[in-house]
Amino acid sequence: MSAPRILISEVGPRDGLQSIAPVMATTAKMAWIAAEAAAGVREIEVGSFVPAKLLPQLADTAEVVRFARTIPGLTVAALVPNLRGAQAAVAAGAHKITLPLSVSETHSLRNLRRTHAQVLEEARAIADFLKALPPERRPHFEGSLSTVFGCTLEGPIPDAQIAGLAEALMAAGCDEIGLADTTGYADPAAVRRMTRLVRAAAGASAVCGIHLHNTRGLGLANALAAIEEDITTFDSSLGGLGGCPFAPGASGNIVTEDLCFMLAAMGLDTGIDLSALLKVREIVAAALPGQELYGFTPLAGLPLGFRGTATGERARGR
Amino acid sequence: MSAPRILISEVGPRDGLQSIAPVMATTAKMAWIAAEAAAGVREIEVGSFVPAKLLPQLADTAEVVRFARTIPGLTVAALVPNLRGAQAAVAAGAHKITLPLSVSETHSLRNLRRTHAQVLEEARAIADFLKALPPERRPHFEGSLSTVFGCTLEGPIPDAQIAGLAEALMAAGCDEIGLADTTGYADPAAVRRMTRLVRAAAGASAVCGIHLHNTRGLGLANALAAIEEDITTFDSSLGGLGGCPFAPGASGNIVTEDLCFMLAAMGLDTGIDLSALLKVREIVAAALPGQELYGFTPLAGLPLGFRGTATGERARGR
Repeated sequence: MSAPRILISEVGPRDGLQSIAPVMATTAKMAWIAAEAAAGVREIEVGSFVPAKLLPQLADTAEVVRFARTIPGLTVAALVPNLRGAQAAVAAGAHKITLPLSVSETHSLRNLRRTHAQVLEEARAIADFLKALPPERRPHFEGSLSTVFGCTLEGPIPDAQIAGLAEALMAAGCDEIGLADTTGYADPAAVRRMTRLVRAAAGASAVCGIHLHNTRGLGLANALAAIEEDITTFDSSLGGLGGCPFAPGASGNIVTEDLCFMLAAMGLDTGIDLSALLKVREIVAAALPGQELYGFTPLAGLPLGFRGTATGERARGR
Repeated sequence: MSAPRILISEVGPRDGLQSIAPVMATTAKMAWIAAEAAAGVREIEVGSFVPAKLLPQLADTAEVVRFARTIPGLTVAALVPNLRGAQAAVAAGAHKITLPLSVSETHSLRNLRRTHAQVLEEARAIADFLKALPPERRPHFEGSLSTVFGCTLEGPIPDAQIAGLAEALMAAGCDEIGLADTTGYADPAAVRRMTRLVRAAAGASAVCGIHLHNTRGLGLANALAAIEEDITTFDSSLGGLGGCPFAPGASGNIVTEDLCFMLAAMGLDTGIDLSALLKVREIVAAALPGQELYGFTPLAGLPLGFRGTATGERARGR
């Protein structure tokens, strides 16, 4: 059996939970992560190594990483804002760490309280720290270009600035550059253009992931454009939980359930069992009473005669 | 100035209003249609010539068509279920009439109370009636293949049946064949496949319009796939009002506001002034108190620095 072509990277336990007021119990996070992995999700960003004072919702990230590490076949990802976060992530055993760099310097100062130069310095320090680790403890290191499709504070960011930052992150020692539509400003044409721009700067093989929001309803159209540009890793959030607390007006991530339905319907293999995935929603709903969950497919259900499955079998042509 | 490439065909006054219980006042319909035409929408399906007993919401269709005819540059479209409806549409002065034919015969019997053979007979009778009219009174005649992406009662419909019905509608005398995702079952791959299938059967130039719903959140992704297949006419509904009362679980049409935002952001010209369009929503909201309106762009607003306009100027690359 060939490997699934598309990797869904569930970011709800990090991006979703950091954006809402209630703190989910650690046991509920574990149940969510375990159930989603059992449904076939192969990568989950389970938390962020930021001070608990800043994001009490994610204070248990180290414990959650250690738990998630016990799930066979699951890539355990975590966000890190700096070297100290990276050290904590490695200590807990994360397989992948993501350092966000906002291409809008105004947003960077508000979000990470750092200039571009300071974030790049941090990226170099993290890369040096990782290089000194034995290979089996060394996580994959992603630099994520946030607000890359425009910023709520600065508006559009010049191409040259974006390309320069992508190049600088690779030079600093990142393994991969991600594109993040933090503000929900992307459109399908911009996704195509930005993918090509950043690939030209960072190297084609270094750019394979995208983080999309559904702020203006274009999330899945943007995902389709990204698929056509051979982007293979898609961040999404179960129930569309999430958003950026520092980008006013930006609502949740694209919805894992709707994204998986689209991919399964198109015959693109994600390895995910759609029916099992839809049931995971109940765990999140029970753990966050009163919290709004998004998504259309969970409400509408699967089409009659739908045969899209984890192996990508098509629904049509009976 | 070149003609806009993409035609948005607003169907809210027909598909939207027929799917909700409240009856909108005729004057409110007129204000809605006038405001949307003033915002640059060039085609509006203003009603349906069905017996008032069946759809009291659309009982004033003839009056609304006569009003809409007075708006310069607006193509006034109406749905007709049969010859009698077509005669009423011509008497009122409609520029375009659409006869739905559900490729699912079960759905056809429930929706139009007719077999495929009976609908095709009706299509022939309408075409004969139109041919006898002087050219200036003769409306454009579209046959719309509803449930073409699958039916809530029958599931997927065999390709051969769909191709045969498309061919038969053209042979009966339709000018054009539309594709309608009545049930919200479409996905981007299916949109591509079905467009090619129906074009092969009906002739490439005869298939240029698609009617999409957002039942499972894929509406705009499906629209993007259709754009890539050179589909140029898109039905949508202001505020996402609408759906099919005979297809349980099928919610509203794709949202005109979000579709127009996507197209403007992509630099595709629709001739529509996005800010003016967003204001039309207030007319609909005021006329339908308590009725839920959908759409993400109206809530999130336009991106900072957005320069997408009616002339398709791009927001990026300042």
